[in-house]
Amino acid sequence: MTMKILLAGEPEAAGWARWRARLAAALPEAEWYTRAELGASGLAPEDIVAAVVASPPPGSLQGLPKLRLVQSLWAGVDRLLADATLPPDVPLARMVDPMMSAAMAETALWAVLALHRGFFAYQRRQREGLWQAHAQRRAEEVRVLVLGLGAMGQAVRQRLEPLGYRVQGWRRDGTPLEPLLAASEIVVNLLPLTPATRGLLDARFFAALPPGASIVNLARGAHVVDADLLAALEAGHLRHAVLDVFHEEPLPAGRAFWRHPQVTLLPHVAALTDARSAAAVVAANLRALRDGMPLAHLVDRERAY
Amino acid sequence: MTMKILLAGEPEAAGWARWRARLAAALPEAEWYTRAELGASGLAPEDIVAAVVASPPPGSLQGLPKLRLVQSLWAGVDRLLADATLPPDVPLARMVDPMMSAAMAETALWAVLALHRGFFAYQRRQREGLWQAHAQRRAEEVRVLVLGLGAMGQAVRQRLEPLGYRVQGWRRDGTPLEPLLAASEIVVNLLPLTPATRGLLDARFFAALPPGASIVNLARGAHVVDADLLAALEAGHLRHAVLDVFHEEPLPAGRAFWRHPQVTLLPHVAALTDARSAAAVVAANLRALRDGMPLAHLVDRERAY
Repeated sequence: MTMKILLAGEPEAAGWARWRARLAAALPEAEWYTRAELGASGLAPEDIVAAVVASPPPGSLQGLPKLRLVQSLWAGVDRLLADATLPPDVPLARMVDPMMSAAMAETALWAVLALHRGFFAYQRRQREGLWQAHAQRRAEEVRVLVLGLGAMGQAVRQRLEPLGYRVQGWRRDGTPLEPLLAASEIVVNLLPLTPATRGLLDARFFAALPPGASIVNLARGAHVVDADLLAALEAGHLRHAVLDVFHEEPLPAGRAFWRHPQVTLLPHVAALTDARSAAAVVAANLRALRDGMPLAHLVDRERAY
Repeated sequence: MTMKILLAGEPEAAGWARWRARLAAALPEAEWYTRAELGASGLAPEDIVAAVVASPPPGSLQGLPKLRLVQSLWAGVDRLLADATLPPDVPLARMVDPMMSAAMAETALWAVLALHRGFFAYQRRQREGLWQAHAQRRAEEVRVLVLGLGAMGQAVRQRLEPLGYRVQGWRRDGTPLEPLLAASEIVVNLLPLTPATRGLLDARFFAALPPGASIVNLARGAHVVDADLLAALEAGHLRHAVLDVFHEEPLPAGRAFWRHPQVTLLPHVAALTDARSAAAVVAANLRALRDGMPLAHLVDRERAY
């Protein structure tokens, strides 16, 4: 029997068109419906066995009695879990896509290289018309702490280590954080956003870092207490912050991060889901569902990731 | 007999103090003299058997009848060879230092990542207060051409390829350049400056690149015809240039590169000679000289590198 799958949310400004082509190519035996198309099709809600979602509005997954899998196109599921109407017993899968991990590692590597070699400072000096070299340090002298050791954290680590950086990793269930912070000059945050990690990067966290340390936040804006980060930058305790994510996105005009000389801001682009490879990941999980095989990348609702 | 070695030029603003400590540690059996110290020492010029040089003023190496090696602390020897008073028959060695190659590769990697992922464009948008994502491409889709395949070119290639970039290399004695240019989106220049490579990056070179290509010049300013580069940027044919080196350094105030939105400027810092590892390279060559063993990294004066 043909699998009937709901498409909920908006993967990009252009809507589902591009994704649908990729998904259809990866899983030709399925049929794909947005809510509007489902209503017009004459199908009953109980015909839907799975939903593929991208930032679905709250309530999008209600009234689907036979739903057996919610597959996210995004790696982070914090917004999805915040929807109180999400069916509590339906398995929920995150996107774990090697191309997305590669993209995340590229961004992390670029930020670490720029912080290590002072390229952000040189770009500032260019704007000031200042020709001035600073000392050059070896990668072996730079300690990097990666927060979060899932597929993306591992990919970052695997690209930093061959360059000579001294990389430590930390996961929330692991060793105490404070001793690692004291020995870290660059912190790359790739944690999932959960009740346990929300606000982790606060005044106490920053104070535990050595003077001159820098932050690279590629995870979620709500990991950071913005006022504490600004205070640590202003005080000269932190040197620089590379921020891809914010409490509110797009970051509203007038916020201090926009024009702060020690902040490099990206518009949530550190790693976009790659439609080509992600469609294959979705198709594999939907086939597993159809065939009664184990599902991949399932979210533990207790841990919240 | 103790080797007596001349120190000529200025390796850094602070003079020879730091280098001398490193050199003495690496080769304790030698004695080191600046010209002034040599004059005050009572030694004769014919006691000097080798010179370690860092941008020596023209004429610095005249009047040393027993000189048997000139060892440069810098990788590039174009300025040294331009000194008409350089003794013609004395072997001249360039600096080939693995730590310097690593530093060069870091800079090249940072520039390629930034160009591939559009991070320079995002930094410009930050200054404009613009939250706007562009499409994300895979490293596999990005073709990088490395000009120069010495120690530094190889180091760059070895770091780019594991990330997925499609890297081609070119050396002047090799295959024709134009077909490679047509298939390259990012060009990293690491060529030695010689009469054959001076002005290589000119209007014809840029026109052979596909529209939207970018230039990373980490070699010498005189490889580039500045007016042609500016014209190619203005015409929209080239997307961006990362420039570490210039015809005149420091780059004089008021030059277009300082404030050009498509130019990222570094003050000749892509790879500084690392005193710790370079002192060992110098010591090894001086020991070879003393022991009558083959000298390393000798410059072919005909090729000019």
